[in-house]
Amino acid sequence: MSANPEFLIVQAAKKQPVSRRPVWLMRQAGRYMPEFRAIRAKVDFLTLCDTADLVVEVTLQPVDQLGIDGAIIFSDLLIPARDMGADLEYVKGEGPVIHNPIRHHDDLKSLKDPDPSEDSPALGTAISMLQKQLEPSIPVLGFTGAPWTTAAYMIEGGGSRNYIQIKEMMYKAPETFFALLDKVVPVLVRYLDYQVRAGVRMVQIFDSWAGNLSHSDYRHYALPATQAVVQGFKALHPEVPLILYVGNSGHILEATAESGADVLSLDWRVDLKDAARRVGDKVGFQGNLDPVRLFSTADDVEAQVKALLQDFDWKTGHVFNLGHGILPGTPVENVKRLVETVKRYG
Amino acid sequence: MSANPEFLIVQAAKKQPVSRRPVWLMRQAGRYMPEFRAIRAKVDFLTLCDTADLVVEVTLQPVDQLGIDGAIIFSDLLIPARDMGADLEYVKGEGPVIHNPIRHHDDLKSLKDPDPSEDSPALGTAISMLQKQLEPSIPVLGFTGAPWTTAAYMIEGGGSRNYIQIKEMMYKAPETFFALLDKVVPVLVRYLDYQVRAGVRMVQIFDSWAGNLSHSDYRHYALPATQAVVQGFKALHPEVPLILYVGNSGHILEATAESGADVLSLDWRVDLKDAARRVGDKVGFQGNLDPVRLFSTADDVEAQVKALLQDFDWKTGHVFNLGHGILPGTPVENVKRLVETVKRYG
Repeated sequence: MSANPEFLIVQAAKKQPVSRRPVWLMRQAGRYMPEFRAIRAKVDFLTLCDTADLVVEVTLQPVDQLGIDGAIIFSDLLIPARDMGADLEYVKGEGPVIHNPIRHHDDLKSLKDPDPSEDSPALGTAISMLQKQLEPSIPVLGFTGAPWTTAAYMIEGGGSRNYIQIKEMMYKAPETFFALLDKVVPVLVRYLDYQVRAGVRMVQIFDSWAGNLSHSDYRHYALPATQAVVQGFKALHPEVPLILYVGNSGHILEATAESGADVLSLDWRVDLKDAARRVGDKVGFQGNLDPVRLFSTADDVEAQVKALLQDFDWKTGHVFNLGHGILPGTPVENVKRLVETVKRYG
Repeated sequence: MSANPEFLIVQAAKKQPVSRRPVWLMRQAGRYMPEFRAIRAKVDFLTLCDTADLVVEVTLQPVDQLGIDGAIIFSDLLIPARDMGADLEYVKGEGPVIHNPIRHHDDLKSLKDPDPSEDSPALGTAISMLQKQLEPSIPVLGFTGAPWTTAAYMIEGGGSRNYIQIKEMMYKAPETFFALLDKVVPVLVRYLDYQVRAGVRMVQIFDSWAGNLSHSDYRHYALPATQAVVQGFKALHPEVPLILYVGNSGHILEATAESGADVLSLDWRVDLKDAARRVGDKVGFQGNLDPVRLFSTADDVEAQVKALLQDFDWKTGHVFNLGHGILPGTPVENVKRLVETVKRYG
């Protein structure tokens, strides 16, 4: 690796000139790939996240097979919450379950202030190993959950349809809610910092669920904590681009653009040109093909990717991605065609 | 009832001068109410929908208890689909299940062209009975599903998280998808027409799931069929206001405003002032308090309703509602406070 490698994906995120638009895919390592399923048949999800050799193996699977431009570290949004004391289990068919959800102010007392190098060392070890194994042009990418989404899991005790528990706390016990965010924010900054010190060259914050909030609730209950994470991170690593993904954020684009993130990752619902019109060119964009489009034919996938690239014709400041993670059952050949098409026409 | 009764809710929907803003609530008859649960303990959901006396009873429950301005007929989005031949069952804890989903072009052959007066006579009978029992100032409101949402249930075979089946059909077998819409559209118009002839004074079309579509997919696969229903209905009943609810539509507001609907019903995510700025004053608005806000304290509910009324200060053209249906577990006293507050400050 050269002393100052020029990663395509980092350059695009910083809006520097690029030879073509880069591409990586949310959940590019995942159940749609038979090689991933073979490993998951042997170990449970959290054991996989905690075993550096296996993390390296599954992180490399899509890089080797798809030829994408970045290797996002295989991990889980809820690792920081787990290390804070959430009793996390992945229940087959149900997803994450936290057996000790935060419901009362007293529940905050038992939360720990974790150190990723002690509590989740596989994360850093795997990043260091990957850096040595990857081609010099491919960076490792890091990530964490956003404060609101992390708090939602911790309060709801898992996924949710209507977010009644977290909203009830926001509205009826705001001091408890904000005290939880105050504990979560520095932990998330620390987990991002840890990943950068281990070798990642770009990070993404996932606010998967905050799009459920009304415009005014997002600004009051979610955005300030996200801004605090971004500011904390940027104070430590001003040169590392930061992407913010807020799922279902068509109604709060302008607010998310005030987060301090360099790039907004948009889901497939939003038209990228509309987004740029609303938000301006102060941020870059990532996205945003509908992941379900990958269930179409390979030729249709190619046509849709080309149409998206032509319609949103930014020469830089655009990182190609899906609007959400790759779904189980997605045909691998269609994912390959997507990557090939971006590399040819991006 | 006078020969030409002036229903507050109809006047507001038509942007005529009103003494105050009207209020009704999606799913105002439902499981949050003990009287409703007492009836549901005795009969299953579809039997309830098919029994005119019981429909009248549950439709009147919120009118009697809450003092709202409109009595939406108790029925189900999937009644037209059921009458077309969908083998519909409500499975406890799962919601609607259709045992014979549409997956192939040949599946369209068995679809029937139903007549609501023969296939679902309880709907019309209950509307006529309600008209006689309600105070003269309270209209009965009718509804139906929108074509895309109706088709989604028929193709997916129930609710869905990612809409893979319907999208796969849209992308890989568009002729089958559009042929299904061609069958659904006239049925939906007929069920709306039937309700108006039985006595409803305003109708709402629910496109609960179309907000999952990207902007371009919404315009291509959903909006034209919605427009066809609106045009078909308006040709029959130009004087009856029509409201369109598209769940999660912050990214497609401008498109939904082209539907021909008189009023757009928005979910809680969107700020109504933002919506009016984007769409203009060619339509009215309905909404849009977060239904989960009703899990807060009664005083907070009152404060939030007042804030919404002050922030969005249209004198007419605004029908107060929630941004989605009332959830099971919602405290009844908070729903009452909401209605009182709109009536006092609207």
